[in-house]
Amino acid sequence: MKKYTVGIDFGTLSGRAVLVDVMTGEECASVVMDYPHAVIDSILPASGEVLPINWALEDPRDYLAVLEFLFPALCREAGIEKEQIVGVGIDFTCCTILPIKKDGTALVSLPEFEQNKHAYVKLWKHHASQPWADRMNEVAAERGETFVNYFGGKISSEWLFPKLLQTAKEAPEVIEAADYYIEAGDWLNFLLTGVQKRGYLFASYKAEYLPDVGYPSDEYLAAVDPELPELAHRLLDAPIAQMGECVGRVTKEAAERFGLAEGTAVAASIPDAHVAAPAVGLTKPGDIYGIFGTSNCYFTLADIYRDIGGICGYVPDGLMPGYFGVEAGLCAVGDHFAWVVDNLATAEDKAEAEQLGIPVIQLLVRRAAKKKPGETGLLALDWWNGNRNILVDGNLTGLLIGMTLRTKTDDILRALIEATAFATKVIIDRMEECGMKIDSLIAAGGIARKDAFTMQVYSDVLGIPINVISSKQAPALGSAIYAAVAAGEYPDIFAASDAMKSPIYSSYTPNKENEKVYSALYREYLTLHDYFGRGGNDVMKRLLKISQGEI
Amino acid sequence: MKKYTVGIDFGTLSGRAVLVDVMTGEECASVVMDYPHAVIDSILPASGEVLPINWALEDPRDYLAVLEFLFPALCREAGIEKEQIVGVGIDFTCCTILPIKKDGTALVSLPEFEQNKHAYVKLWKHHASQPWADRMNEVAAERGETFVNYFGGKISSEWLFPKLLQTAKEAPEVIEAADYYIEAGDWLNFLLTGVQKRGYLFASYKAEYLPDVGYPSDEYLAAVDPELPELAHRLLDAPIAQMGECVGRVTKEAAERFGLAEGTAVAASIPDAHVAAPAVGLTKPGDIYGIFGTSNCYFTLADIYRDIGGICGYVPDGLMPGYFGVEAGLCAVGDHFAWVVDNLATAEDKAEAEQLGIPVIQLLVRRAAKKKPGETGLLALDWWNGNRNILVDGNLTGLLIGMTLRTKTDDILRALIEATAFATKVIIDRMEECGMKIDSLIAAGGIARKDAFTMQVYSDVLGIPINVISSKQAPALGSAIYAAVAAGEYPDIFAASDAMKSPIYSSYTPNKENEKVYSALYREYLTLHDYFGRGGNDVMKRLLKISQGEI
Repeated sequence: MKKYTVGIDFGTLSGRAVLVDVMTGEECASVVMDYPHAVIDSILPASGEVLPINWALEDPRDYLAVLEFLFPALCREAGIEKEQIVGVGIDFTCCTILPIKKDGTALVSLPEFEQNKHAYVKLWKHHASQPWADRMNEVAAERGETFVNYFGGKISSEWLFPKLLQTAKEAPEVIEAADYYIEAGDWLNFLLTGVQKRGYLFASYKAEYLPDVGYPSDEYLAAVDPELPELAHRLLDAPIAQMGECVGRVTKEAAERFGLAEGTAVAASIPDAHVAAPAVGLTKPGDIYGIFGTSNCYFTLADIYRDIGGICGYVPDGLMPGYFGVEAGLCAVGDHFAWVVDNLATAEDKAEAEQLGIPVIQLLVRRAAKKKPGETGLLALDWWNGNRNILVDGNLTGLLIGMTLRTKTDDILRALIEATAFATKVIIDRMEECGMKIDSLIAAGGIARKDAFTMQVYSDVLGIPINVISSKQAPALGSAIYAAVAAGEYPDIFAASDAMKSPIYSSYTPNKENEKVYSALYREYLTLHDYFGRGGNDVMKRLLKISQGEI
Repeated sequence: MKKYTVGIDFGTLSGRAVLVDVMTGEECASVVMDYPHAVIDSILPASGEVLPINWALEDPRDYLAVLEFLFPALCREAGIEKEQIVGVGIDFTCCTILPIKKDGTALVSLPEFEQNKHAYVKLWKHHASQPWADRMNEVAAERGETFVNYFGGKISSEWLFPKLLQTAKEAPEVIEAADYYIEAGDWLNFLLTGVQKRGYLFASYKAEYLPDVGYPSDEYLAAVDPELPELAHRLLDAPIAQMGECVGRVTKEAAERFGLAEGTAVAASIPDAHVAAPAVGLTKPGDIYGIFGTSNCYFTLADIYRDIGGICGYVPDGLMPGYFGVEAGLCAVGDHFAWVVDNLATAEDKAEAEQLGIPVIQLLVRRAAKKKPGETGLLALDWWNGNRNILVDGNLTGLLIGMTLRTKTDDILRALIEATAFATKVIIDRMEECGMKIDSLIAAGGIARKDAFTMQVYSDVLGIPINVISSKQAPALGSAIYAAVAAGEYPDIFAASDAMKSPIYSSYTPNKENEKVYSALYREYLTLHDYFGRGGNDVMKRLLKISQGEI
C-alpha cells in the first residue's frame, strides 16, 4: 500500500494542501481553501471598528476551517485511506502571530475578546508596530548588540517583538489574559499533537533566536522596555523544534476532529518561504531560490558566516542543515501588478482583455513586452510597500521618474517589473560583495510559471540563468517532504529532496544586448536607491509623516 | 449704427472668434471651429509617413478654412452687417511657423511639397529642434551674448531659429523654395491686407528681436551655422508692427474671399497669450496674469529692466506700451489632466462619471478635493512635457514620489495639480528675488472658470488672492480690443482696455492652514527640482537618451 504525506501551505489569503507520494514526490491531489475573512485591514467585522492604517489582521478560526476541510477532501480526490497518510507538515506566513490560552484556545474565540482587535492574528504584513521596531533598533545600536547581524542588522516591524510590544502597550488586557504568544504555524501543530514546540526558523528569523544563545538577552529586552523580559519568558516559553523533527503525533481528539489517523507524525512547522528549499532542490551554495508572488522572497545557502548588513536573515541551519540559510526579500511584486490593474487599467484595457479572454494583467504585460529595454524612458523605485531588502525601512515609498505625455499604463507596469529585478540585483550584489557567488536562480510561484516576460527581464537584469520549477505548490510540497523525514521515511532532508523534489518547468538565459541596456538603467537605479534610501534626501519619510497629519 | 470689432484666437486645436461691441466690450457673438487635421504628431496624412518623436505639425489650410467660415457666421449670429465690423485682430499660438512663397502661398499647398513634412506648419510644441536650440545656447554662452538675457537666458527648441535650422538642414529643398519663413499669425494678416509685417511680440519673444538692435547679430548667427545669416536676412525680411498698429486694410480680393468689407482695419497680430492683457485688465505692475489651459502661461509688467535669468521673456513694450512685458510658463497643465483621464482612469471611474453625467476629469477632481493638503503622501515634478519655466529644458521629464499600494488615480491627479502650482511659485519667487513684487493673480482659461479646487490650491500654494475673469475668450477679446485701437476708436490700448475689459467671474483667497502644509511640500518640491533639474542627477536626460536608443 502506497504511503503519502500531506504538506499544507498557509498563505496570506488561503490554505493550500498537497498529498504527495513519499517515494516519487508526485503530487497526487491538492485542495485550496480561501480564508472566509481574508485579510482584515480596514474594518473589524465583529465590531465594525475602522482599523488604523498599516494594520493587517486575520481571524485564526479561518485556519481551523481549512484544517477541518482538507484531509477528507484530499483522501477523496486521490481515492486513498487516511491511514496511508504517514506524516503531516505545515508551513505558514510569518511572523503571523496570536495570543492563546494554555489549552490552545485562541483568545479571540472567547466572547470577551471577540471585539478586541489585538486578540486577532497580527498578519506578517501588519506594519503598525513600526515605532517599536524603531525603539528596538535604537537600543540595539546604543548597546552594540551583535545578534542583529544575523538578521540583516535591523529589526523589522513585521517581527515578533515589535508586535508583542504594540499589543502589550495598546491592549494590556490581551497580554494579561494570554498564556502564550505564538506563531500560527506552531499553534496548529499544538492543536494537532497536544505538544507545544516553536519551529526553529520562526524563532530565529522572526524572534532573533540563536542556537546556544536563545532569544535576545534580558538586559537588552529590559533596555527596550522594562516589562519585556517577563513577557518574553512567560509567552514564548516552549522548546524549539528543528526542521524535519517530529514534534509529536496526532492525538485521538485531533484525529477525530480533522479526519486523520491517530499517531500520524507531525513535522516542525516552517515559514512558508523557507520550507520550499527541498522542494525546489536548493541544496548547495551558488544557487539562489526566489518565490515570485505578492512579494518576492529569496533564499540561498552559505557555508561560512559572513557579516552581511542589510540582508534580512543569516541563520545557522536556517534552510538546510549544515549551512547558513540566507534570506532576503522585496516588499511588493505581485502587489504592484494588482495595484496597476486596480488603479490604472482603463475601461478600454478591460474591454480588450475580456474580448481576448485573458486577465487584464496579461494584456498589459503583453503590451509592455513589445517594447525594448529602456524604451519606456521610465525608471521606478519599487518601494510601494516599503523596502525590506538591504535598506530594511518600512517608511520608504515608491518613485517613478521619466514620465512624458506619451507614457502609458503598460510602461508603468514594465518599469515596476524592471525595478523589482533591479532590487533583486541589489540583494545579489550585496551577497557577492560579501564573498558569496550566485550562479543561477531557481524560481517558483505563480508569476514565475505564467509570466515569461517578467522572468526574461530578471534573467537579463541579473545576468544569470533561471530555472522555473514545475510544482505550483512548492511550499506545500516542501512541507510534505519534511513530513516524510519526520515520519522516518528518509534519513535526512537531502535524501528526501533528491527523491521528491519538483521537476523543471521552463528555463531562461540572459540576452546579452538587453543586459547592456539594463546595466545602464541599473546604475541609475542605484543612484536613486542610495539618494532616497540612505539619507541623501529623506523626502519619502517626510511625505509619509505629512500624510499622517504630522507637520 | 453700432460698431464692432472681431478678435480671432488661433489656438492649438481650433480657431475661436468673438464679435465685440466697441463701446462696451460686450461679446455679442462667437464662433469656434476645430482644425480639420488637428495636431499632426504621429502620421502625416498626405503620405502616411510616421513622424519621429517630438514632432508637432499643423496644416496651414486649416487656418484658412476657419477664416473663410467665421465672419459671415458672426454677422449672422449677431444680426449685423459686415460693414459694421470696423477692425479685425488676430492672435496665434507661437512660434507656429511655416514657409511661404512671395505671393503668400503656403509651400505645402504646392503639389511637390504636399508630402514633405518640413513644408507644414511647425507648431509651437514641435520639440524636435532641440539639438539646434542646444547649439545656439552653446554658442551664445561661448560668445557671452547678452541678448539672451531678455528671453530667459536660454533659447528654447520651440522658437524660430531652431525650427528654421532644423528645416534648413533636414529639408534644404523646402528652404530653397521658400521666400519667407513666417509666423502663422503674420501670414494671415499678409493674406488679409497684402502687406507683410511681423508682429513685434512674435519677433521679440520667439526670434529674439530687440528694438534698436534687431534680430541676433550676423556674427552670432554665423557662429551657430555659416548659412544662417543669409537665411535670416532672406526669410525674415519684413518691417516690424507694434501692438495696436494697423498693419493694413482688407483688400478687395480678401474682402470677397472672407466676407468682410474692403478697407477694414487689421491690427498687428499678437501671440495668443500676450494679447489678453488688455482683456483681463493687466495694466500695471504687481498683478500677474495666468492663462490656465493645456499649459499655463504667465505675464506681468515691470517698470524697469532686471536681469532675470530663467524667466522666459523680458521684453520692452512686450505686453503694454511703456512697460517691460515679463513672460513665463509651464509646459503642461491641462495636458496632465488629459494624460490622467486617457491613461489612468479606470472602467469604474468612467461608469461612475457617466452615471453622474459629468466628465471623468470632474469626478477625479471631486475625489482629489476630498483629501487634505499632503494627505495623498505624493509629490510630483510636473515636467511631463519638459520644463519651460526657470530651467527651460525640454529634456526634463516627470517624477512622482511617495506611492504606496493605497495610492489612487485621483491622488496622482492631485499631486500633478499641486506640482503645477509649485512650479508657478518657483516663477513668482524668481521674480521677487529679482525685486518685483506680485500681489495677486488674474486668471483666465477653461480650468480657471470650471475648476474651483485647482484655483484654491493655487491660491493656497502662492499665498495670494486670485480673480478669475468672466470672458471665456480672453485672447479673442484682447484681439478685438487691439482691433479697436487699430481702427482708431481709442487713442491707446489703456483707454481701450478700461472701456472694453472683461468683468470678474469668481475670486479665491488663501486658506492659512493649507498654506502651512503646502509650504512644507514646496520645500520638498524645490529640493527635487534642483536635484533633478540643475545637474544634481541628470537621470531624466539619460533615460530619455536610452529611450531613443542611445546607449
